[in-house]
Amino acid sequence: MTTTTVLDHPTTAAAYTPTTLVAALNAPKGFGDQTLRDRRADAIELLGGIPDPSVLPAAELAESAARVLAEPGLGALQYSRTAGLPGLRAWIAEREGVPVERVLITNGGFHGLSLGVQLAVERGDLVAVDNPIFPLFLRGLELSAGRPLPVPVGAHGIDVDALAALLRSGARPSALYMVPDFHNPSQGTLPIDERRELVALAEHYGFVVLADNPYRELRFRGEPVSAEPFNASSHVLHVNTFTKTLGPGLRLGWIVAPEHLVPDLVALRSRQDSHSSTLVQAIVGDLLESRPTLFDDTLDRARALYRERSDGFSAAIEREAPGVFDITAPEGGLFLWPRIVDDGIDADRLADDASAEGVEYQRGSFFPSGPGADADRRLRFAFGDTGVERLEEAAVRLGRAVRRQV
Amino acid sequence: MTTTTVLDHPTTAAAYTPTTLVAALNAPKGFGDQTLRDRRADAIELLGGIPDPSVLPAAELAESAARVLAEPGLGALQYSRTAGLPGLRAWIAEREGVPVERVLITNGGFHGLSLGVQLAVERGDLVAVDNPIFPLFLRGLELSAGRPLPVPVGAHGIDVDALAALLRSGARPSALYMVPDFHNPSQGTLPIDERRELVALAEHYGFVVLADNPYRELRFRGEPVSAEPFNASSHVLHVNTFTKTLGPGLRLGWIVAPEHLVPDLVALRSRQDSHSSTLVQAIVGDLLESRPTLFDDTLDRARALYRERSDGFSAAIEREAPGVFDITAPEGGLFLWPRIVDDGIDADRLADDASAEGVEYQRGSFFPSGPGADADRRLRFAFGDTGVERLEEAAVRLGRAVRRQV
Repeated sequence: MTTTTVLDHPTTAAAYTPTTLVAALNAPKGFGDQTLRDRRADAIELLGGIPDPSVLPAAELAESAARVLAEPGLGALQYSRTAGLPGLRAWIAEREGVPVERVLITNGGFHGLSLGVQLAVERGDLVAVDNPIFPLFLRGLELSAGRPLPVPVGAHGIDVDALAALLRSGARPSALYMVPDFHNPSQGTLPIDERRELVALAEHYGFVVLADNPYRELRFRGEPVSAEPFNASSHVLHVNTFTKTLGPGLRLGWIVAPEHLVPDLVALRSRQDSHSSTLVQAIVGDLLESRPTLFDDTLDRARALYRERSDGFSAAIEREAPGVFDITAPEGGLFLWPRIVDDGIDADRLADDASAEGVEYQRGSFFPSGPGADADRRLRFAFGDTGVERLEEAAVRLGRAVRRQV
Repeated sequence: MTTTTVLDHPTTAAAYTPTTLVAALNAPKGFGDQTLRDRRADAIELLGGIPDPSVLPAAELAESAARVLAEPGLGALQYSRTAGLPGLRAWIAEREGVPVERVLITNGGFHGLSLGVQLAVERGDLVAVDNPIFPLFLRGLELSAGRPLPVPVGAHGIDVDALAALLRSGARPSALYMVPDFHNPSQGTLPIDERRELVALAEHYGFVVLADNPYRELRFRGEPVSAEPFNASSHVLHVNTFTKTLGPGLRLGWIVAPEHLVPDLVALRSRQDSHSSTLVQAIVGDLLESRPTLFDDTLDRARALYRERSDGFSAAIEREAPGVFDITAPEGGLFLWPRIVDDGIDADRLADDASAEGVEYQRGSFFPSGPGADADRRLRFAFGDTGVERLEEAAVRLGRAVRRQV
């Protein structure tokens, strides 16, 4: 080979230009930035929906790992199909009450949302979203340059009447993002009639519902509301995950998809990373298949723990700052969402003072997707991975922060 | 909440319309379809670059799994940073000779390529690619609707002179895809001078090189060629993976990225699935950190095994079909790429006859990215997960298939 002459005339290196897609991925702001604040060394962090290690089946996962790594042929270390391992898919399909062909394994719930966005949202499309919202969804939406259309969320989840009014007045979203059970951050659960109505709207107007349901199994009070309207619809991606039940670090979730969307989802996902870790799928599949009561037993322990923490923390806040907050006792999940009822309290100053006193939470102003939400007067406390004694200390510190203003 | 009137006027459900992105993901063709053929029950499959289970450290991985799942706080089951676990990144960074900040953990090599495509390729951009090529890359390229610009690949990898000529004549790709070591399918390794020249061209013309290097550690003969030109460049994503060394099922790989591209890559990847499985990263990190010689010992065993298979299979083919093929003994990797030198042999008929005789391989015609490659007269045999005795039987069957034509 002869050398070319290009190098004989060196110029300044040509600059790299990021794609439109990447250029649009804004720098973090609001949600997440709070974690950059200086903290007290003994700060109690109530920031993220993190499950408690004590209710994750670590020893059983290790046993399953040993088992699948001793199998002849070592299938757990080899390539597998994009849709997921058959046994794991079958277990999920039975629990969801759908045919196995409709279950696609993902790297966790957020991955399911991101696939849904890339599937259904054309660049610049309108996307109806919860208001207030789990704000990381708005970052995922940047993958398709979707434009958020805020829909109010009330005490029982997304306001389907308000959505219907938006649609009647001409709004044409290509997708809708919502959380059916224990809404994040506002904790409501969408009633069955509204689920049916929402799905009917999606089918009528032709948008895809991204139903994000990571907390569904963590109900510790009240009656569950059926997911059947979602799982029966041609227009819903019902997105779920083992994140809150078996551990976020697995990065293992699933989508229940209508049959006609499965090939497109598989085609899209196969071009990202081929398939989810066979090893993780094999371990979790072995865990669930070889121990038929393990998952529900784990959930029972988790629910009892989270109910105790939710109730204990609520009572402590009421005790330490009586009359300052209105707290609706959640029926499940990992969050409290108190509203500041004392008009004399400035919410931002309270968050700063609480940080100075040594308790960190997400301020409600991080969560609106548009105007009109009362989130600015709210606090989101995550109690999943903090014991009652620490939560009571957090309430004491919160009380001290409150008293700096009143 | 009052019910809306939408349901009082049911219409036909509005159809779902896939996004431009998803609509462009063509149905599989060529590569991959062969796997749909009817096979003989005793078929010997030499189709994919699959490592042999006997040289994957399964027992040691199980021990690491047990260890990380017994750690207080269970970090292995919790959320972690998008860039990857610090210990694992540090191990890789030391091996690559780069600062740890430049190492990003991925879900395997293909994931690294897909991130690179989304980072660097605007919709409709020209992307220079190997010809012949690892054809799945062309599917990944559909994520950005990139237009392939074939660049000839010779006995020593991509033809950098030909690339330079294309650039001088005005071609302006935004990225280039190539395989530096043991090119797939054609097995050449790019010499050091050409590596430097390629990188200089990228820096001069401002395109990003996606250097896909999954076979790099599997050299079983000859001298390694340094990857330093790639790791030292501002314009290269050096993409690697544990797929061929510790197991594809882990779905664990990495990118060595220039510092200025790291924030964009992290922003993009965090919007997909947050981060790679913490559990898999923790297991592999523990394996590598706690057993300093394990990785190289594993590679030594693998190299000896693959050399034995490569040489044994080559000799058997020469014995069973003397003078029919020209086989260049590979210096590493998992493939043979024989050329049919007997002009009387029809390559497609040979593949069909071989299948009927019970040996499956990828026909060379699956691999061109454009005209001019001699791939149509080639066969790609993957020998990684097949023992010498079976490979010798495969050669016998291939010989029978040849004799159907001569």
